[in-house]
Amino acid sequence: MVGGGAIGLGIAWRLAQRGRDVLVLDRAEPGSGASYHAAGMLAPITEATFGEDALLRLNLASAAAYPAFLRDLAAATGRSLQSGAPGTLFVALDRDQLEALERLYDFQRGLGLAVEWLRGSRCRELEPALHPAVRAGIGAVEKEVDPRALTAALGCAVAAAGGRVRSGAEVAGLLWTGDRITGVVLATGEEIAAPSVVLAAGCWSGGIAGVPKEVADAVRPVKGQILRLRPRPGEALPIRHLLRTEEVYLVPRSSPARGDEIVVGATVEEQGFDTSLTGGGVYELLRAAIDVVPGVREMELAEASAGLRPGSRDNAPLLGSLSAPLSAGGEAAGLVVATGHYRNGILLTPVTADAIASVVCEGVVREAIAPFRPDRFAHVCC
Amino acid sequence: MVGGGAIGLGIAWRLAQRGRDVLVLDRAEPGSGASYHAAGMLAPITEATFGEDALLRLNLASAAAYPAFLRDLAAATGRSLQSGAPGTLFVALDRDQLEALERLYDFQRGLGLAVEWLRGSRCRELEPALHPAVRAGIGAVEKEVDPRALTAALGCAVAAAGGRVRSGAEVAGLLWTGDRITGVVLATGEEIAAPSVVLAAGCWSGGIAGVPKEVADAVRPVKGQILRLRPRPGEALPIRHLLRTEEVYLVPRSSPARGDEIVVGATVEEQGFDTSLTGGGVYELLRAAIDVVPGVREMELAEASAGLRPGSRDNAPLLGSLSAPLSAGGEAAGLVVATGHYRNGILLTPVTADAIASVVCEGVVREAIAPFRPDRFAHVCC
Repeated sequence: MVGGGAIGLGIAWRLAQRGRDVLVLDRAEPGSGASYHAAGMLAPITEATFGEDALLRLNLASAAAYPAFLRDLAAATGRSLQSGAPGTLFVALDRDQLEALERLYDFQRGLGLAVEWLRGSRCRELEPALHPAVRAGIGAVEKEVDPRALTAALGCAVAAAGGRVRSGAEVAGLLWTGDRITGVVLATGEEIAAPSVVLAAGCWSGGIAGVPKEVADAVRPVKGQILRLRPRPGEALPIRHLLRTEEVYLVPRSSPARGDEIVVGATVEEQGFDTSLTGGGVYELLRAAIDVVPGVREMELAEASAGLRPGSRDNAPLLGSLSAPLSAGGEAAGLVVATGHYRNGILLTPVTADAIASVVCEGVVREAIAPFRPDRFAHVCC
Repeated sequence: MVGGGAIGLGIAWRLAQRGRDVLVLDRAEPGSGASYHAAGMLAPITEATFGEDALLRLNLASAAAYPAFLRDLAAATGRSLQSGAPGTLFVALDRDQLEALERLYDFQRGLGLAVEWLRGSRCRELEPALHPAVRAGIGAVEKEVDPRALTAALGCAVAAAGGRVRSGAEVAGLLWTGDRITGVVLATGEEIAAPSVVLAAGCWSGGIAGVPKEVADAVRPVKGQILRLRPRPGEALPIRHLLRTEEVYLVPRSSPARGDEIVVGATVEEQGFDTSLTGGGVYELLRAAIDVVPGVREMELAEASAGLRPGSRDNAPLLGSLSAPLSAGGEAAGLVVATGHYRNGILLTPVTADAIASVVCEGVVREAIAPFRPDRFAHVCC
């Protein structure tokens, strides 16, 4: 397993549960990449975008799988990651946003999604901290999960199931014998033999020698700056719902580890591997958050950070076996890919973990992931 | 010496140079309090405020003393803290700001200050990165100094002159024998005898047992949130002048230790000893900075912090001997106070250091500090 983010750890856990000998290699600390910065919205409905129907179905399937996935995880680790949010409100603050929201609502209804149109007064009843200018909103039952708690729990679950995790193990290249993968080589030169390798290295997947060009070229870093704010001492969180506008989202969370917080995200920037905060990025996030919840002004700015999403050419993940000649035992012999999850890595962890485990163990490509073959960009001219 | 900020270290250096046996006690690390967060503008002219004439004269005197003070410091330590800024531009971005700027200009001219009225086009000639909306500006020859480099150099200078500095030495109280001070007691219970004590503990001055009530009640923490931004790799600083609007200031600096940066400050908040960053504070600083220099958007937000200025009842420092019966040797026997410098601590370091050294060594109250007796609030009802 190359990569110890939510995706890599999720797959490793499922493989270890099936009795596979799993070794997770992470270039830094497991959970310290994109997963560390992620907000953890499980929002297939309000993330639904024109022209991404297959991805929407995958997102919905993974959201539906989440409760059972978290119950399994709690059973394996004793850690409950139950979400407290009653749902999402996607609100409009002015006439332009209202018109866009009406189009979004029609689109969502056309897809059969369970959304509710809420007048401004109803939005403010549900969330009194909303700005009085809120004109209307779309309500949807969506949840959230703390990505840092998720990767920590998954790390424990991997270990409990007999898997191993190595930090600071940067994979420099894949080892091939003909068209059959035989292991990986670390940046230190150390070689590690393996009958199959799962590539879940996020935006770093393309920099690993031996990754086929159609995969390497399809994945790129997409920078996201994100803020975490805390209530002042003695104060409660000002909101309970996940809140969105077309500019920003706010995820309220009560974390056993970090207390109450609101995650405010996120910029979407093509800046290569740069992870610096910028004046403009932090400014726009705060402005947009204050516009919708003025009480954000009074909150403590506890953390500002930037992560690198693994973007892909069509915003959907690359999932499946690549060279995949099935061996005698009915198992995939080649490289298995699980990267390019872009904005949906945390949401897609359950469906990815289960489906990739099926690919590795049985050579079965489940229907849900069939549209996301990792070689689908092979014909694209670079 | 109670307090190892710029003021405490500056006084300690001058005392040690005169052969006094000096011990600086700092509750944390020297230079880690208000001095650490300060922007380091040496701006007596553009800080000039209605009704603070005596403070203006003190600020001007200290600004005039700065070049020689820094030359002395360079001679003592080998560290040059020469400022590169060609001056301050105080600009107006809209009609309201323009009218306020005209009033400020008239006020400054009435005081005989060396200020120049600059049309908007001239402002943009001087600083092409200014927002095109800049209507006009006031130019003044003012400098800056890096407060962190200043306290570091002063710490070296104290040591080079034979003085001592103790970190983590929190003074809990002053020791008195009748009306004569005999030393201090630390929070650990350790007693340190001293024939005279200089109180330069900034906003913490009031919390020390045995500090006379008229001093303790006059000093309070005034929180300031402040940002430091860096150019992107390979980029230069967008501005050369100190820039101000009525909302914000920007101090460009090339620091040997930290490279190029712009310091953007600062909020002014009555929040007690709270030093948390807030959504609203960081937002307003970024907004105001971007309003005047749009290029701030592209800069890296390298640091956001909050410090506690030692505010006083009239925004001016408390300077001088308090109980001050002169001993046989012509020296002040009591407590010497040098606190409450509010927004001007870095600027006032040279004049404070020299004047307080004269108080301690000769019992002489120089004319410059005569208006700032530390007992001037004794008649104020609390």
